[in-house]
Amino acid sequence: MELWEKKVESSTIYDGAIIRVELDQAELPNGTLTRREVVRHPGGVAILPLDAQGRVITVRQFRYPFYTVVTELPAGKLDPGEDHRDAAVRELSEEVGATAGELIYLGSMYASPGFCDEELHMYLALDLTEGPCHPDPDEFLEVERVPFDGLVDRIMKNEVRDGKTIAAVLRAKEYLARR
Amino acid sequence: MELWEKKVESSTIYDGAIIRVELDQAELPNGTLTRREVVRHPGGVAILPLDAQGRVITVRQFRYPFYTVVTELPAGKLDPGEDHRDAAVRELSEEVGATAGELIYLGSMYASPGFCDEELHMYLALDLTEGPCHPDPDEFLEVERVPFDGLVDRIMKNEVRDGKTIAAVLRAKEYLARR
Repeated sequence: MELWEKKVESSTIYDGAIIRVELDQAELPNGTLTRREVVRHPGGVAILPLDAQGRVITVRQFRYPFYTVVTELPAGKLDPGEDHRDAAVRELSEEVGATAGELIYLGSMYASPGFCDEELHMYLALDLTEGPCHPDPDEFLEVERVPFDGLVDRIMKNEVRDGKTIAAVLRAKEYLARR
Repeated sequence: MELWEKKVESSTIYDGAIIRVELDQAELPNGTLTRREVVRHPGGVAILPLDAQGRVITVRQFRYPFYTVVTELPAGKLDPGEDHRDAAVRELSEEVGATAGELIYLGSMYASPGFCDEELHMYLALDLTEGPCHPDPDEFLEVERVPFDGLVDRIMKNEVRDGKTIAAVLRAKEYLARR
């Protein structure tokens, strides 16, 4: 089976602070023309900071689209042209005030490939040195510590629902078991 | 720390076939007003079909936002008002032509809670009966079979990058280990 689509036309519907929305026309392998709604996103990083006591440092934040508080790993968008490892170092410092002696790349994930090009890079941060946080003035978040196995349990109970957090925690578990 | 935001104003920027884009103004706990770009999405399901030989049935599809072919679990959006278990049964039949004797809920994930309200429900499908697929005429996909452990290996090598696939496969691994 042929698996391709060809961009025929593209127009920008909305160009915002975080996302850009494009409405494209694409040709399918059977010659049909179809519409493609695409959200362009700068991509980001998520960091799993594991402290010397085997606890994961997580953050609780109000997430406006769900209108509720969500437990997540520290994370953030890439600045324009920023390397994702540099972004991981920056976000770890800003959100939880830590630096990592060892920063292990866990791979990336496509958050929602059907309509959005957001790619998230995941890191495991070990050998932490902790200091004060430097959150943005308009960023409200609460730092928590959860034992690693307890976080896996909360994922399995569907109490932790953030996709990048689920992917990074379970990937780190597999990584640490194989190391 | 107070964790809330209050919707002050909302306007719809784009109302499309899959997504609706809203631009809201929200009040933060410090009184500041901020803009919130929100993508509304119907939500969806992803199914991990595990056959009698211990192989996972995956699909390869061209994903326009990344302009490349992506390996994923069978998945799809919810129809309006559709129960997510019914959607899992429907998508499993449409995309891979299978029905499941046992359909186990693995929990849900927020694909990208910073800007989008998409929630994906994940299912493990066992005791499969296989028949012909019924894809949409404009849906081009290739069905593959990958041994479960091989799929975990591909995730760990960063060869499988779809977020829902990573989350569901690693969650199923944990689920099966605990069962």
